[in-house]
Amino acid sequence: MSVMEALHWRYAAKRMNGTKVAREALDNILDAAHLAPSSYGLQPYSVLVIEAPALRERIRGKACDQPQVSECSHLLIFAAWSEVDGRHVDELIELTAASRGLDPKELEGYRQALHDAVAGFATPEARQQWAARQAYIALGTALTAAAVQRVDASPMEGFDPAALDALLGLEEQGLRSVVLLALGYRDTQQDRLAGQAKVRWPKERFVVELSGA
Amino acid sequence: MSVMEALHWRYAAKRMNGTKVAREALDNILDAAHLAPSSYGLQPYSVLVIEAPALRERIRGKACDQPQVSECSHLLIFAAWSEVDGRHVDELIELTAASRGLDPKELEGYRQALHDAVAGFATPEARQQWAARQAYIALGTALTAAAVQRVDASPMEGFDPAALDALLGLEEQGLRSVVLLALGYRDTQQDRLAGQAKVRWPKERFVVELSGA
Repeated sequence: MSVMEALHWRYAAKRMNGTKVAREALDNILDAAHLAPSSYGLQPYSVLVIEAPALRERIRGKACDQPQVSECSHLLIFAAWSEVDGRHVDELIELTAASRGLDPKELEGYRQALHDAVAGFATPEARQQWAARQAYIALGTALTAAAVQRVDASPMEGFDPAALDALLGLEEQGLRSVVLLALGYRDTQQDRLAGQAKVRWPKERFVVELSGA
Repeated sequence: MSVMEALHWRYAAKRMNGTKVAREALDNILDAAHLAPSSYGLQPYSVLVIEAPALRERIRGKACDQPQVSECSHLLIFAAWSEVDGRHVDELIELTAASRGLDPKELEGYRQALHDAVAGFATPEARQQWAARQAYIALGTALTAAAVQRVDASPMEGFDPAALDALLGLEEQGLRSVVLLALGYRDTQQDRLAGQAKVRWPKERFVVELSGA
């Protein structure tokens, strides 16, 4: 299915039927998230994958009791790094050198620029917001990759991040949950929104062409 | 090209060659952004499209003098709504009723829930961050749609939002620029990063499977 067909097909299923997403399709969705671009290439987030039903039930209790959490095949949690600092920059420089067959010394200017960048946020909150936004790029990429494979993907912001982080011990891992993505298959019988027309602002309101005149 | 091939092919071109993106490809990219999901379906942002070279030159002055701003075909600016309030909710309910052939009265419970939601942000800043994140979902969708068509798309956070908003009069339009996306074609001669290996954290670090044991 083409990307455009897929994006017309997709919607945020409110009910899912429990059918499992095949490993290959799941891996493609995770690969799409992994390949998403990020600011400075720092990818300051992780993607947690939860298949275990019992754990998803406990998460549902922190996520406004949304049935997709139980009914999906796999629940993804996009979790931003709570700290981003010079150590991460140094790791990225090492990784870049290794990936590209370069001497890290050749990347010294770049390393300094990245150090300045991660130290340059006005507040820790601003840095966390920046990290969270990077995760949202991957969210957009992952849900497109899901739709192309006819896997339903419901993004969910309706959860208690602090409670979810506590449940999963994310703080100790330097992570903060920012958005969920339930992967599975729509239950067209139970989902009253299935099959309804997609609602979007008129394109002429959404897209504004500026001539600069 | 498949989504996975496209995501491997893409990179954030630092130099572009000035070749124009055809209208059909541009429209597909804008349609992908337009079809992206958003929290409550509110789509609290617009996408500005700038082709005029003179205006792009002026924008470059607010965007760390990045050459892609001049060398791209079209510059997209994702701009979040500076205010999101009950009027937007009422408009969305009307649009939903019209799109789905419903009586708006049938959506009264939904309308009330959305009113509560947009009034429920702890601070105006929190609401703006939420709006900006929605735009990033569309960013991820748009850059995937670009790559599938072999159009280069460079996301850029390196700009002065307040200066750009002032230049374009966005504040008066209730908008705040949050991220740029330069669309065009990579200049493989001048871009020293073209053709270099993609750098990503090892997948086993990026993806964490939780068993709940």
